[in-house]
Amino acid sequence: MTYGYGIDIGGTTVKLGLFSEDGTLLDQWSIPTDTSEHGAHIPGDIAASILTDMKKRPFSGDAYLGLGVGAPGQVWPDGTASAVNLGWDHQPLLPVLERLTGLRAVGDNDANLAAMGEAWRGGGMGYKSMVLVTLGTGVGGGIILDGKCLRGAHRAGGEIGHIPVNPQEALQCNCGGHGCLEQYASATGCARLAREALSASAEPSTLRSLPDPDARAVWDAANAGDPLALRIADEYCAYLARGLAAVTGTVDPEAIVLGGGVSRAGQLLLDMTRAHYRPLAFPACKDTPIVLATLYNDAGIYGAMATLIAER
Amino acid sequence: MTYGYGIDIGGTTVKLGLFSEDGTLLDQWSIPTDTSEHGAHIPGDIAASILTDMKKRPFSGDAYLGLGVGAPGQVWPDGTASAVNLGWDHQPLLPVLERLTGLRAVGDNDANLAAMGEAWRGGGMGYKSMVLVTLGTGVGGGIILDGKCLRGAHRAGGEIGHIPVNPQEALQCNCGGHGCLEQYASATGCARLAREALSASAEPSTLRSLPDPDARAVWDAANAGDPLALRIADEYCAYLARGLAAVTGTVDPEAIVLGGGVSRAGQLLLDMTRAHYRPLAFPACKDTPIVLATLYNDAGIYGAMATLIAER
Repeated sequence: MTYGYGIDIGGTTVKLGLFSEDGTLLDQWSIPTDTSEHGAHIPGDIAASILTDMKKRPFSGDAYLGLGVGAPGQVWPDGTASAVNLGWDHQPLLPVLERLTGLRAVGDNDANLAAMGEAWRGGGMGYKSMVLVTLGTGVGGGIILDGKCLRGAHRAGGEIGHIPVNPQEALQCNCGGHGCLEQYASATGCARLAREALSASAEPSTLRSLPDPDARAVWDAANAGDPLALRIADEYCAYLARGLAAVTGTVDPEAIVLGGGVSRAGQLLLDMTRAHYRPLAFPACKDTPIVLATLYNDAGIYGAMATLIAER
Repeated sequence: MTYGYGIDIGGTTVKLGLFSEDGTLLDQWSIPTDTSEHGAHIPGDIAASILTDMKKRPFSGDAYLGLGVGAPGQVWPDGTASAVNLGWDHQPLLPVLERLTGLRAVGDNDANLAAMGEAWRGGGMGYKSMVLVTLGTGVGGGIILDGKCLRGAHRAGGEIGHIPVNPQEALQCNCGGHGCLEQYASATGCARLAREALSASAEPSTLRSLPDPDARAVWDAANAGDPLALRIADEYCAYLARGLAAVTGTVDPEAIVLGGGVSRAGQLLLDMTRAHYRPLAFPACKDTPIVLATLYNDAGIYGAMATLIAER
């Protein structure tokens, strides 16, 4: 048996996991992300934590496949990484980790790793191709084809949050465009749909007891049967379905996996999304399974390990 | 040097080409497509034509890579093919060709082969990944990643004609959906946009001298500076750009190649499409080249040969 470390660098903590190659998470822990001095200490901190862990293990050095590493930004082919949240602009990440630990290091951005993780041991397990759609603060994604991530020519593969879904949109998206999927299907977008719906009528709703209902409040109320919340949720899913139909008509994956905070809405989200998706989808893709992610915050470390295995 | 035959089966003729492996088309010809008796004679007719050609050549049997074959429908993993236009329902195609010619045969549908052809020796030459968008009677497409065609889990990879681009559409697409790209960006869709624009105003236009202007008439008039035709063309490109932005935000190819009859509109089509595409595209993909296909009706035989090489 061989082993490897999955590492997911976030803005406040770095998650680390020790995996066996068969996908068992043997141990996991986290360390704080030190963003001082443009994040210059982060690679060294990670290496020290790995070296400390390795000393505790009975494995010989050649039992390790290496380190898989995810960053909240871009990991470039030369192993440097750029991530605004961490202060990184071509920070030497993989070379420093390799030098300090003596282990091989591979890396990718966190959205791609989450997709690799869900494909390997999460909601997409068993599918040879799948698309992860992450419904969080923004809408991200990752496309897995034959066990490998489609990174794209400009590292924009799976950036499905910016598929245009509404030609009538007046407000600008963070990307500069108008009518991007992310403007509706993110948690932020869901809160906006709620504000608009609440101000458009005086219809009673449990949401009116909250000063500024967020996506979780909308879906909790919808799951509890609140009619206005159900309509907001339905509108949310109508936008999401347009994006999904564009994705399946393009890459035709075996499955779509919904992750991110909003996916905790569960079965209601799936049912409403499928109902809107089916009439929009190309006939051959109408029955493409739409399922929930299962790894949540651990998707990154699983995906880091999966990438390490895929790129051995 | 090795050689191969590229074969493109259409509804009225079968195109055949003899290629050397370096991409030189040494000879090309065609035979009629005999659709009688549910197209049962087609494989035998093709084999006879190949055997006749082989007798003329100085090459030994092992100089041939085999036959690449495109069908206007599906070529299944077992080598049978289904194509409504030909009367085929799991017609044994590749096995019969192999038995009669003694050569290996590989196949795919014609849209995928056209993409392989344009990537190999056409408008997409030199790009490692590209998407061909065929603007013909319908809107088809094919996605090439690292020299291979993304066929998809349900053989619907690259069916970008059915990406939803207009949530307000009342009319139904051939696929059963509403607001599919094909409803606007096909030649048929372009003619419809023209009908709508002509009936919406009494503005003078050279198009009014025609009983029912088709896509070619619209683009000819636009290229000649007719203001109404220019507005129709611009609307056409606005829809097309929405589809392209969805495609680049999903698979992020190195280039987009526009083919099919409407692509003969040339530079004006490119300029207008790029102008609409840029504000909609994800930032990293704004400068993705949008170029014209160059192989036209020969894309299929080139793609058949390219597939033969890719799957040797």
